[in-house]
Amino acid sequence: MSNSTDELFKNVISHAKEYGFVFQSSEIYDGLSAVYDYGQNGAELKNNIKTYWWKAMVQMHDNIVGIDSAIFMHPTIWKASGHVDGFSDPMIDNKDSNKRYRADQLLEDRIARLDEEGKTSEAEELQLEMDNALKAENLPRLKELIIEQNIKCPISNTANWTDVRQFNLMFSTQVGAIADESETIYLRPETAQGIFVNYLNVQKSGRMKIPFGIAQIGKAFRNEVIARQFIIRMREFEQMEMQYFVRPGTQKEWFEKWKAARLKWHLALGTDAAKYRYHEHTKLAFYADAAYDIEFDFPFGFKEVEGIHSRTNYDLSQHEKFSRKKMQYFDPEVDPETGKPFGNYIPYVIETSIGLDRMFLLTMINAFEEEDLSTEEKQDSRTVLRLHPCLAPVKAAIFPLTKKDGLPEKAREIMDKLKLDFNLQYEEKDAIGKRYRRQDAIGTPFCITVDHQTLEDNTVTIRHRDSMAQERVAADDLEKIIGDLVSWKNLLG
Amino acid sequence: MSNSTDELFKNVISHAKEYGFVFQSSEIYDGLSAVYDYGQNGAELKNNIKTYWWKAMVQMHDNIVGIDSAIFMHPTIWKASGHVDGFSDPMIDNKDSNKRYRADQLLEDRIARLDEEGKTSEAEELQLEMDNALKAENLPRLKELIIEQNIKCPISNTANWTDVRQFNLMFSTQVGAIADESETIYLRPETAQGIFVNYLNVQKSGRMKIPFGIAQIGKAFRNEVIARQFIIRMREFEQMEMQYFVRPGTQKEWFEKWKAARLKWHLALGTDAAKYRYHEHTKLAFYADAAYDIEFDFPFGFKEVEGIHSRTNYDLSQHEKFSRKKMQYFDPEVDPETGKPFGNYIPYVIETSIGLDRMFLLTMINAFEEEDLSTEEKQDSRTVLRLHPCLAPVKAAIFPLTKKDGLPEKAREIMDKLKLDFNLQYEEKDAIGKRYRRQDAIGTPFCITVDHQTLEDNTVTIRHRDSMAQERVAADDLEKIIGDLVSWKNLLG
Repeated sequence: MSNSTDELFKNVISHAKEYGFVFQSSEIYDGLSAVYDYGQNGAELKNNIKTYWWKAMVQMHDNIVGIDSAIFMHPTIWKASGHVDGFSDPMIDNKDSNKRYRADQLLEDRIARLDEEGKTSEAEELQLEMDNALKAENLPRLKELIIEQNIKCPISNTANWTDVRQFNLMFSTQVGAIADESETIYLRPETAQGIFVNYLNVQKSGRMKIPFGIAQIGKAFRNEVIARQFIIRMREFEQMEMQYFVRPGTQKEWFEKWKAARLKWHLALGTDAAKYRYHEHTKLAFYADAAYDIEFDFPFGFKEVEGIHSRTNYDLSQHEKFSRKKMQYFDPEVDPETGKPFGNYIPYVIETSIGLDRMFLLTMINAFEEEDLSTEEKQDSRTVLRLHPCLAPVKAAIFPLTKKDGLPEKAREIMDKLKLDFNLQYEEKDAIGKRYRRQDAIGTPFCITVDHQTLEDNTVTIRHRDSMAQERVAADDLEKIIGDLVSWKNLLG
Repeated sequence: MSNSTDELFKNVISHAKEYGFVFQSSEIYDGLSAVYDYGQNGAELKNNIKTYWWKAMVQMHDNIVGIDSAIFMHPTIWKASGHVDGFSDPMIDNKDSNKRYRADQLLEDRIARLDEEGKTSEAEELQLEMDNALKAENLPRLKELIIEQNIKCPISNTANWTDVRQFNLMFSTQVGAIADESETIYLRPETAQGIFVNYLNVQKSGRMKIPFGIAQIGKAFRNEVIARQFIIRMREFEQMEMQYFVRPGTQKEWFEKWKAARLKWHLALGTDAAKYRYHEHTKLAFYADAAYDIEFDFPFGFKEVEGIHSRTNYDLSQHEKFSRKKMQYFDPEVDPETGKPFGNYIPYVIETSIGLDRMFLLTMINAFEEEDLSTEEKQDSRTVLRLHPCLAPVKAAIFPLTKKDGLPEKAREIMDKLKLDFNLQYEEKDAIGKRYRRQDAIGTPFCITVDHQTLEDNTVTIRHRDSMAQERVAADDLEKIIGDLVSWKNLLG
């Protein structure tokens, strides 16, 4: 990460706190690691991103519906999905310091060191050995590599290591007070399984016909060993997932459609296309057909924001096996090849899965600008969040020019007519210029100033965030002017 | 519960499942006790209730903002709030059956039995004894009462009881993989504390002036010993809470205002006022000033839907004590009595707290009607959800009269113009009458039929859910007709 991008990231984080977007969780208690709270502007921005996704996925597609399944699920679900056995990191403890590390990260650090020292072939060899050990889940081999490389604990400076063990990333808790009914359940590590186990309930009660989709927005939890990079990797986070159920054999076609549709959703926000790229997974899970990430160019490099996965019928088949309930769909459509209905099958699934918090951070970073406004006469600058108007937390701010002469009352009268349709802010303190800057900092597209002329002819000054241009308009036209700019039609139409 | 109300409740539950409103969680794995999933229509209805609350509380008040704090919080917060020590039920185990019971519920059952047997004074005396023991947290006395009454375990039929112990209702989990950093944290049992610990962050970054409010919608978790009555008492549930920060001495006035405002919010939906009542708490928590519940007349009796609480400065003072951070607000307004600013103080808090799932259930029950449509000629009936149009999951359904002659294409053309603004459904299967009934069952306010005349003059038949009246209107007027009926202005204007 170069100095300037590092600086940008730091500035966005401190801006996010200063202007009520993101606070460290439990800050007055010195924080809770890798957990964050959304402040008053963050909550609105996050809700607007959710709305954009929900409208694009559910409202605009009459064959996609949304559900809201619980975080608590039957523990056998995570057996079936493979999370109980496979969702873990290899950990190793140093016996002298009692510190625990991720075995693969100790090796990664070593590889980076070798690279720095110019020992490229040694680095490459170690990388290959480690990859093979990880792939084969050969934990003793990982330990051997750590010993061979003479990797020491940075605290104790010894190589007195325990064996490598798998550490599951799911949080568990005990449910039920009745002693012999108490059982261990997990906080869901992904929302997708809530869709899979409900797919027939939704299909039947909603009379859905293949292809159809089920969408969901909700919290998921992972006990990340090393959580980092602000809201990029959190222990509590939010996903927006859609599972699209298709006829076996058509999955490639639908995969390509969703891959394109999802990138289009991102680009509709006006983001420079060069900041996005696809990343194809070369190492696929054994059941997967295809997998692409949509990556964004964060200050610390390209990182996944969304995944599009062709998951075959693996999850549904697993649930059929573990629940002993039929997970088959009856397809009444006639197969042109056989002249008979396609009949019973377990559908194939295309998944689109986006991290809401990453999308939030991406949006903040992409919108953040420290703009130089200096002229020959004087130095000046402003911090402006160039958020898409549909996503802006506050749609317009209303300012009486002064606190007297009935201007506040007039401003409130105008506000009362608009506030049912738009989230507004009222501010009467400080000079207008200062108030503009505060609204720029939270991305408010319009500032509306009520002055003495307003009392005479019911016109106001409207000032545009991006151009900083001001114009005089009739107060009665405000609803339409604001409405046109913040309309979802601009993103979905 | 009388037979007919019992029947109504059962019918609502089965309707909720059949029409995709609420499913038992993990149903294919035989369910997870006291946890439910919202299906495709339930998710929309729930989102609409959230939107109504958020708009009424946040958007309509320029001194109230919303936040979204995490479920995971620093564990000391629950020490400060009193939940670690005080949020528990008294439990007792039978040593022979190994079954655990709530001690107070064993006694409640006994009291009910005494009442049934006509031993009213004995029942009253036991009630009084139990209440005193609970109030004094006298656990040995609770056991004595159980022994005195010779209460037996229904499984073992013995009175071989353990001592009574407190069982905490918070779910706990271990966070952090690094061995010596791992700690026990709790899933929040209420959203309010997320507001309290952030109140100064919000106040400062948002330049809020007293009085101001912070609102939040989010999940909370309680390990209920006996969870029951469908979505009335769940282990995972959702709250909509608002904390209003006021100057000490003004809390009574604000309490009365919010008490009235919140009932008004409920009644704006058109619910019969006789179905609501206030319930005053006579036993207040030691720190509380006043507390009222808003109760709704459920089929099983009046039950709390919302609470309005005057919590004094207790929570903020506790956090000041436990976090050792100042929780004071500086009030620059001049006190007319002293002529000086009110200065530094810890604000008093009025809380409004509504259970979203209960509000959801209330809405379903209140809307549900099995309407007799019989005439002299024939018997007929329909199930209709008379939901407020703003809350209805689907705003309009579009039906081509037949599947040919270009009617589906025309219907889709009309739908495409409307779907950006409204959640719509398209249906072409079965007779129109049958399609009407399916939409009645999910509460869709409008059904729009496209027929051959539509192709000639671009008019459609619009059929109203409640009156079942049909009228011919221009397709171009649909946006306004639907828009007027589902506008939030009807609820908030």
